[in-house]
Formats: sequence, structure tokens, C-alpha cells
Amino acid sequence: MLRVGVNGYGTIGKRVADAIRVQPDMEVSGVAKRSPDYVAIGAEEAGFRVYAADEDRIDEFTAAGIDLAGTVDELVADSDVVVDATPSGVGAQNRPLYERHDTPALFQGGEDATVAEVSFNARANYDEAEDADYARVVSCNTTGLSRLVAPLHENYGIEKVRATLVRRGGDPDQTDRGPINDALPDPVSIPSHHGPDVQTVFPELDIDTIGLKVPTTMMHVHTVNVTLENEPDDATDIRERLRSEDRILTIPEYAGIDGAGTLKDFALDAGRPRGDIWENCVWEESITLQGRDLYLMQAIHQEADVVPENVDALRALSGHLTGPESRSLTNETLGIGFSQFAGRDDLTLDRQTAD
Amino acid sequence: MLRVGVNGYGTIGKRVADAIRVQPDMEVSGVAKRSPDYVAIGAEEAGFRVYAADEDRIDEFTAAGIDLAGTVDELVADSDVVVDATPSGVGAQNRPLYERHDTPALFQGGEDATVAEVSFNARANYDEAEDADYARVVSCNTTGLSRLVAPLHENYGIEKVRATLVRRGGDPDQTDRGPINDALPDPVSIPSHHGPDVQTVFPELDIDTIGLKVPTTMMHVHTVNVTLENEPDDATDIRERLRSEDRILTIPEYAGIDGAGTLKDFALDAGRPRGDIWENCVWEESITLQGRDLYLMQAIHQEADVVPENVDALRALSGHLTGPESRSLTNETLGIGFSQFAGRDDLTLDRQTAD
Repeated sequence: MLRVGVNGYGTIGKRVADAIRVQPDMEVSGVAKRSPDYVAIGAEEAGFRVYAADEDRIDEFTAAGIDLAGTVDELVADSDVVVDATPSGVGAQNRPLYERHDTPALFQGGEDATVAEVSFNARANYDEAEDADYARVVSCNTTGLSRLVAPLHENYGIEKVRATLVRRGGDPDQTDRGPINDALPDPVSIPSHHGPDVQTVFPELDIDTIGLKVPTTMMHVHTVNVTLENEPDDATDIRERLRSEDRILTIPEYAGIDGAGTLKDFALDAGRPRGDIWENCVWEESITLQGRDLYLMQAIHQEADVVPENVDALRALSGHLTGPESRSLTNETLGIGFSQFAGRDDLTLDRQTAD
Repeated sequence: MLRVGVNGYGTIGKRVADAIRVQPDMEVSGVAKRSPDYVAIGAEEAGFRVYAADEDRIDEFTAAGIDLAGTVDELVADSDVVVDATPSGVGAQNRPLYERHDTPALFQGGEDATVAEVSFNARANYDEAEDADYARVVSCNTTGLSRLVAPLHENYGIEKVRATLVRRGGDPDQTDRGPINDALPDPVSIPSHHGPDVQTVFPELDIDTIGLKVPTTMMHVHTVNVTLENEPDDATDIRERLRSEDRILTIPEYAGIDGAGTLKDFALDAGRPRGDIWENCVWEESITLQGRDLYLMQAIHQEADVVPENVDALRALSGHLTGPESRSLTNETLGIGFSQFAGRDDLTLDRQTAD
């Protein structure tokens, strides 16, 4: 039983902790939190051992009636491996702590790639993390792009990827984030850092990305152009390949899911914890082929898509399961994949041909 | 076992159907839906018998692979009582259908009060619906105001209520709603219809309301001023009374819940289905007393707060439980009330005094 410490119990950390909890081969040794707010209280209510990430604020936890199990140093000492889900940049500062305890660790995509030996995506390069002590699970956007690139690369070969990332301004609980009425070129320099980040997973891939930020907190939306090396038969061929991917949901036209709002409503109706959508969401109507140029649009749930990747990365580091074994166990335990549209494929074809 | 038909399976209808399903004394005979979209597919996935609300669109359901149990007329015939959760105005058009079948029905707050004999709020006037065949569950905003007015009226007497309702522009799935960057006086005439609507529950109450719409889909936020007849000892006295209300959550300062975004995040962390918040959410720091003038701010989840009221209204119509019995059974079965802040009251006091 792998004992996993979660350092940083925010948007990602709390989700990764819940995901680890339902795995048969790992358990949460505890979670470290900086401030004693409703999220920390939620961790205690959920039955996690709570550790103070900042020794200077222990009194605040006591004042909020939260029983601390200790400090983050003690959490690391009591863990076989640590998932660092602290804010961008803090993870790198924490690495010496993990080294001191000779404890392997996972970092998140907000850190520079140099924080770990390998940048990880379960679908693309699981094996590369098997001998590593430190791995970095790439960001939500890079994860979303990597999941799309992998099957296209394998089946058709990729000449070049061009993508525009229309990014959410902040998460639902980040009430201090903007913009509130703008579409910000962010970063304004081209390519954005996302392309090079995808290259940490696919070193040979030719990819340029452009980023913006818009006033939404729900999901990122990518417009993607992939110039393929070999021309597919038709768009349906692409759609079928994407449909067969375990962490890609293709949205049929008849579903009436027209944006992130309806996607979240759909996920909540489906009983997803926190309404989380772990899968890339590709609109089938957007899958378009012009010769070797493939175009499509996909939505990425920034709070959720890296969660199963973190679980798989833990297994890659500990090396006791292969990538396919780990992915399928993670999918099964979390409940990844939607049954709603299964067996309705023909209808989609009919409808799309009819239109 | 009360057999309840749900006519209109949208934001409210699907939640009411799920709530009825967990009641020991009632069951869902079926749900009627207008269009075969992801929500209709979700109803089928959830195991509800799906009926076509519009006979002209039966082919569309077939095309989407949804097995219809029949038409709405058959649903009404097969139900002891119907919850009409169709869009505003459609409910009134449906009343003849229910009369034709001599079937009692509940309507929603979007209808004029004249659609039914009584306008209903479980906390305020449960008994008045006991002899009715048709009742109207007042709107989310009116429900939120009624829950607040009831205990203040009983404990201190109310001279006058003045409230500004900062309303969400639309629900998360209503991607065609606005405004996207404005604060609209809506209605621009004062008082807004909300005040008179509260008077359908409290005929003697002196209340003026003003309404606006803002670019959010999460919750309504009310700023409320209540001039009490009898001056309370202090704001803490008010807070304790509100805390003792079963469908009011008072938010302590230390929770760090600063708006609707954090409230929804809190509810999702707590495992609430669809992140629903059935309770009024009153910020404790906002509870302020100036002589007999009470001021406070509360958030109302427009998708959820009327759901338990619909369940209680069904029992009031069937008349087999008293108001307190029904409310407590509904609270227990749905899981209304949060344990997160229980037993931390003293801390709140300390913290608030300290600040």
C-alpha cells in the first residue's frame, strides 16, 4: 500500500486526495494546508489527517478548531511519496524538503520542467517516469493537448500543430482573478509557453500555441489545427479514433451541449464528484478535415483533467503497474468515461449526414 | 405511496424528481420533457420513465434513441399529483390538463399567483396548502425572503422590509442569457414584483423590493434591511436565531467563503448533488443591528432552494404529514444542513469580537 502525502490541499490537491482514496493500491497519509479556511475544514470533515504547511500559522488552525496531525515536515517523513499541489513556483521551493527525506515526489504543471527529471502524461509517456524519483504532471492545457496529439501522432503522423488556447481567467473560488470583461492576449508573445511544454512530452513535435484569457471560470476551450502527415479517409475516421480514447469525450450534436455551462450541467447530472470532467471534451461537429488539415474544438476542465494523471504518475514512480494497467485501474475506480452517448453512434452519423 | 409526475424536466424539474426519489412516502411516476437533449438522455440514464411533453416532437426522441413511455397526457393520467416545472407561463396553460384528469398539481414561482389557490413556503404557511388541489411554490427569491422573514416576524415583529435583489442573469446552462457586462435595473419599476410575491405568503407584511440582474450564473445575492418592531439584544441574538433555522446556513468569518464562487466550491466539496445549496446562505459578518434596523446579506441558489419546498408542498397537498414532520423528513432524506461549522460557534464569537 503506497502511502501518499498531499502537500497543498487546494483545487488540485483536494481532488487528487479524493482520487487516491478510492485506489486499491494507495492511501492518503495526510494533507498539508496553508490556511484554516473552509477547504481545510472540509479536509478534516473528510477524515484526512491535516498538517500545517506553515508553522507560523498553527495557532490559526487551533483557533478554527482544526486538530493538526503535525507539520508538513512530519507529513513528508510519514509518506512513501508526496504529491506537491502547492501554487506555481512553491513546488520548486519544496523540492529540497523532499530530497532531505529522500522521498519521491510529483510536481504540477505550474512548475518549470526543470523541477523534475520527467514531464508526465499517462497516455503519452508513462514509461519514462518509471525510473524517476521526481516527475512533473504537465498542466491542464498541456495534458489536454497531449491526449489529443498521442492518437493522431500514432495513427496519421503529425507534420505540425497550431492551437489557440482560450483560457478561463480563474477557478470558481478565485474571486480575485480577472479579466471580468476582456479577452487578454496572455501571454502576448507567440508562441505561448504551452507549445514548448507539450514538447517536454513530445520532444520531436512541431507545435505553436497562442494563449488568451477570458472572463469565465468553468473551462478552457482550445481551437486546434493539426496538419497530419497521412490524410485520413474522412472526419468520421478521426471521430471514431477519438471516441476510442479512454480520456476523450466526443460530444454528439443531438446532445445539445453547446458550451462549458452545459458541459458542467451535464457532468453534475451524471453525478460526477464536484461536477469534475476528467476527459477532454471534443465537439464532434467541430471535427473538420481539409485535406491533411484537421480542425477541431475541445473544452478542458482545468480543475479536473490532471487528477487521473497524478494517480497514474504515482504508479509510474513506484513502478508496480504498466501504463495500460494503471490507466485502466484509474479509469475504473474514478468512473472515467460517460455511458450517456454509448450505442447512439449511428444516430449521430444519421443526424450529421442529414444536416 | 404518492405517485408524482414531473412535467418539465429542466433545472428545477430534474432536481425535484431526484428529491422525490429519496422520499419514503412518494415515488416518481415519470417525467415529461420537451426536447431530446442531454437532459432527457440523463433522465433515461437515471431510470425515469420519460414522456414527450410535445407530441409533435416524438420522432426527435426516437431519433435520439430515447424510449418514450408515452405523452404528458398519459403521465398525468398515471399520477396522483403532478409537479409542473415547465417554463414560466407554460404552467398556467397546463392547468386545464390537470383539471381534465382531476389531478392535483404544484406550480412554480414563475407563474402568476392566480394559477393556484395558495402560494406556498414550507416554513411560513404549510398549513394553508393542506386543503388545496393546486398550490404554487413561490420563486427562489421569494422562498429565500420568506425563510428569513418568518423567524424575524415570530421573534421580534416586523415593521418593514426593504430588500435589493442582485439577481443572477441566467442559470449555468442558459448560454443565451445576459447581461454579459452590465448591472441592469430589472425590473426598473419599483417595487419589483418580488415584494408583492412575498405578500402572497405574508399578506400583512410591509415590504418593498428592488431588483437588478448581473453577469453571474451562480447565485442571487440579497441585501436586506428589516426594521423590527422590538429591538433585539444584539446582532449575536439575531445570528443565533438564524442559525437555529433548518434551512438557513450562516457563514462564519473564519470559513473564508467570500462569495457565490466559494459557496459553490464549498457545497461541491461537501458532496452536495450538483453542488446544490438548498439553504439560504447568510454571511454572519453582514448581520448588523442599528437600533431596530437589521441589515444582512444572503446568497440564494436559484437552482436549488425551492426543491425541498416542492417536496413539502406535495405532502401538504396530500395532507398526511404536518409541516414540521414533513420539513424534518425532507431535511433528513436530502441531507439539508451542513455539519462543517457545528461546534465551532464559540470560535466565531471569539474571532468576531477580536476583529
